[in-house]
Amino acid sequence: MNWSVLILTELFGTALLIILGNGIVANVVLKGTKGNNSGFLAITVGWALAVLTAALIANAFGGVAHFNPAVTIAIAISDKTKNLGFGAYTGLSPVAMLFLVILIQFIGAVLGQIIVNFVYYKHIKKTLESVKVEDQANVLAMHSTIPTERNPLLNFAMEFLGTTVLIVAILSFGKFANGSGLPNFYGPILVGTTILAIGLSLGGTTGYAINPYRDLAPRLVHSLMPIKNKGTSDWKYSWVPVLAPLLAGVTVGLLFLI
Amino acid sequence: MNWSVLILTELFGTALLIILGNGIVANVVLKGTKGNNSGFLAITVGWALAVLTAALIANAFGGVAHFNPAVTIAIAISDKTKNLGFGAYTGLSPVAMLFLVILIQFIGAVLGQIIVNFVYYKHIKKTLESVKVEDQANVLAMHSTIPTERNPLLNFAMEFLGTTVLIVAILSFGKFANGSGLPNFYGPILVGTTILAIGLSLGGTTGYAINPYRDLAPRLVHSLMPIKNKGTSDWKYSWVPVLAPLLAGVTVGLLFLI
Amino acid sequence: MNWSVLILTELFGTALLIILGNGIVANVVLKGTKGNNSGFLAITVGWALAVLTAALIANAFGGVAHFNPAVTIAIAISDKTKNLGFGAYTGLSPVAMLFLVILIQFIGAVLGQIIVNFVYYKHIKKTLESVKVEDQANVLAMHSTIPTERNPLLNFAMEFLGTTVLIVAILSFGKFANGSGLPNFYGPILVGTTILAIGLSLGGTTGYAINPYRDLAPRLVHSLMPIKNKGTSDWKYSWVPVLAPLLAGVTVGLLFLI
Amino acid sequence: MNWSVLILTELFGTALLIILGNGIVANVVLKGTKGNNSGFLAITVGWALAVLTAALIANAFGGVAHFNPAVTIAIAISDKTKNLGFGAYTGLSPVAMLFLVILIQFIGAVLGQIIVNFVYYKHIKKTLESVKVEDQANVLAMHSTIPTERNPLLNFAMEFLGTTVLIVAILSFGKFANGSGLPNFYGPILVGTTILAIGLSLGGTTGYAINPYRDLAPRLVHSLMPIKNKGTSDWKYSWVPVLAPLLAGVTVGLLFLI
Repeated sequence: MNWSVLILTELFGTALLIILGNGIVANVVLKGTKGNNSGFLAITVGWALAVLTAALIANAFGGVAHFNPAVTIAIAISDKTKNLGFGAYTGLSPVAMLFLVILIQFIGAVLGQIIVNFVYYKHIKKTLESVKVEDQANVLAMHSTIPTERNPLLNFAMEFLGTTVLIVAILSFGKFANGSGLPNFYGPILVGTTILAIGLSLGGTTGYAINPYRDLAPRLVHSLMPIKNKGTSDWKYSWVPVLAPLLAGVTVGLLFLI
Repeated sequence: MNWSVLILTELFGTALLIILGNGIVANVVLKGTKGNNSGFLAITVGWALAVLTAALIANAFGGVAHFNPAVTIAIAISDKTKNLGFGAYTGLSPVAMLFLVILIQFIGAVLGQIIVNFVYYKHIKKTLESVKVEDQANVLAMHSTIPTERNPLLNFAMEFLGTTVLIVAILSFGKFANGSGLPNFYGPILVGTTILAIGLSLGGTTGYAINPYRDLAPRLVHSLMPIKNKGTSDWKYSWVPVLAPLLAGVTVGLLFLI
Repeated sequence: MNWSVLILTELFGTALLIILGNGIVANVVLKGTKGNNSGFLAITVGWALAVLTAALIANAFGGVAHFNPAVTIAIAISDKTKNLGFGAYTGLSPVAMLFLVILIQFIGAVLGQIIVNFVYYKHIKKTLESVKVEDQANVLAMHSTIPTERNPLLNFAMEFLGTTVLIVAILSFGKFANGSGLPNFYGPILVGTTILAIGLSLGGTTGYAINPYRDLAPRLVHSLMPIKNKGTSDWKYSWVPVLAPLLAGVTVGLLFLI
Repeated sequence: MNWSVLILTELFGTALLIILGNGIVANVVLKGTKGNNSGFLAITVGWALAVLTAALIANAFGGVAHFNPAVTIAIAISDKTKNLGFGAYTGLSPVAMLFLVILIQFIGAVLGQIIVNFVYYKHIKKTLESVKVEDQANVLAMHSTIPTERNPLLNFAMEFLGTTVLIVAILSFGKFANGSGLPNFYGPILVGTTILAIGLSLGGTTGYAINPYRDLAPRLVHSLMPIKNKGTSDWKYSWVPVLAPLLAGVTVGLLFLI
């Protein structure tokens, strides 16, 4: 398959992931929406289905459906051939594909967040009217994660643990495919339920980024968004949801080399 | 397969879609029901299962299970043969089947809404007793969508975006079928989860019609319903949930021709 | 397969259906439980999973997994051979199996309700301590259905409609099995989601019995239960959830003969 | 397959089961979490997905995915060969594998609880600040089960019933595998939905341990945890969630020998 399939599915898939994922957060935390105050279960179901939907579509087109550089890096490391996980694609070297995928995922995530902010624009404005800190935090929450208790060690540990479970699941679920003859939609379904499990159980303190770009790209959009009284973009926390998932990706990738 | 299968499954399937779909809305928003005030998650799960159930039954009988003219038009445009997506049916020309399907879907949607209103009749009456605008809005809500903030551009954009995700999903999921040997019930399951994703994430501002008839036919029933104090049928908004999904259908259909 | 498999799976399967189905109602409506006041979505998910779990186990042992005389009658009528739907079983005539199944389902339902009442006994007592009519109604609700608005025509119509959807679904989903080579667990999964759809959308006014024994057998147990202040068993309503599902079963069975 | 696969998957799988399972309880009952007060449905969905996720990963690696000595014992008893359910593993005698599995499951459960307590440490501290009995009970609840009404007979009966349903389901679902050619991920999915059914319906009075170690190991961690004002570890109840599941395991194992 041509490398353009890989790149296009990662670009639009990551955008869709953020649209649907931060869409449910917007729907629950912004003022005046249909889903206002629908609770944590609705958010976690929505995020799991965001991953599922984007991955199903990307897989149907022949993409890898990572949308997450921690996953991409883990798979690249654990690939015992020299293909870095891109053995199915032609036309570029594996290293070039690796860099391009990691770049394009970020662009997709930025694009997705811009679209979410556009369709929920009136509700963002309405939420910020109060000029209260908690309302500003809700607007940030539809972009990036916010820890409930600030503690670098525990926050890092939670993000590392959640991402480890995710990537161990993704890498091990690949074993089911061998010779099964099943269409590859079973993978996104199993990963989607895993993300719901992680969200419900390990999302309680940091809001489970478990994907560096899911946090970093929307935070960049938040900090550039020209809206009055939007409040802090909380950059001082941003290293945790970026570094912890990446470290988990490297660690799990190395473990699967054994 | 004979074209009568196509027509009968679209007629009764679209009716069932509206019965189950607006049934859950009625159950949540009308006064005195078992599910009163059950929240947005219950509504979105119910609507997703409405599509799933109607599509499973229609597929089991050999139907196409569109229930939605935007889907029918997208598939007709994207079909690279001259069959407009009806290659499996005989006895009528594809063009005749296209017009008949689009007509019969509307009749099915009207029929379905009449049945919902009949079985929830006492609760509609009870809800309207107060003569309050918000109760009248709830009765309209079990028919058609109501935007939370009236803004033609943003409302249109949200419906266009939601329908685009739906139709891209439907058209791409078709690729899983090739040579898989699986019974075709996997399609409705994947589409059902996609609709839950769209509802939770992109239903927050307009209530996600993503189907012209799901909004238009019930609105017609609402405007003709001989009940006192029923309030406005809000026809001035009705063009958005009709035109945005149709435009998305044409756009996605053309994209899949490439 | 021997007819004893048919009978034992219907006996224990119907008991399990009632244990899990009325178990979730008990958990939500009785005082002092872990799930008290968990809402309509929890009840409908629990009832759908009650059917799914009981049907999966019964199917695994080789049973038909009806648990519902309306389903049994519909399948018996629609069977174009002379086997009344029991073609897979040997050792008794089809007519004898039909009567025995319909008898044993009732015994299973009674047994199941007795077990629910035993394990929730302390909470039933606690709920009845107040001697309030609404608490007595909650105890009845963990046995049988109670309409929100008493109207024989509308109540009958709702139960008829809900059962019709259920039985049309069951009979049509059988078509997926032909030559698919899939293990037969897909049937319970599809029927389970259908029951969740029916419950959410059509359970709003009558509480969706859609099974004569699911209402009648627990009501009998309620009326015989030696507990003080238990309140009325509401026998005057009991004909609706018995006759409407049976009529739906006969009607759908005849339709599938065409 | 080498016995080390069996042991490693039981060790890490049981740890993951407890991390995700008690993780959702911590998220719902502890103060200041994202999921605080999300309700019983969220807890039961989270626990079901904890089992599903851990079992999927363990199965993918070739493990048995029991994580529960009551299941291990039931399978050992019901195995009509002399393999005690470990026929797929080599390098140790079945009896040695049985003892080792039962030992390692306990160690895994202890390890999992220590990890949960670590990542939720700040929220445990915050919850205990009030020195109120109900807050202390919430901290115990993220470790072990607490009955709503203390009655040895009814508590024992509920745990026995719930575990019986679980183990009957697991043993009977194995029958679907014969010659189906499906990858073995269907088993965890069916068992996961069964656990959701049990939790919703039979979790109402005792909180459904249905696994001796899921209760005993976290209780041990609770009693050793060096935190002030943590309150009682309630050892006097601990025999119920240990003995009732074990008795159910022995009983169902013997039944499946028939």
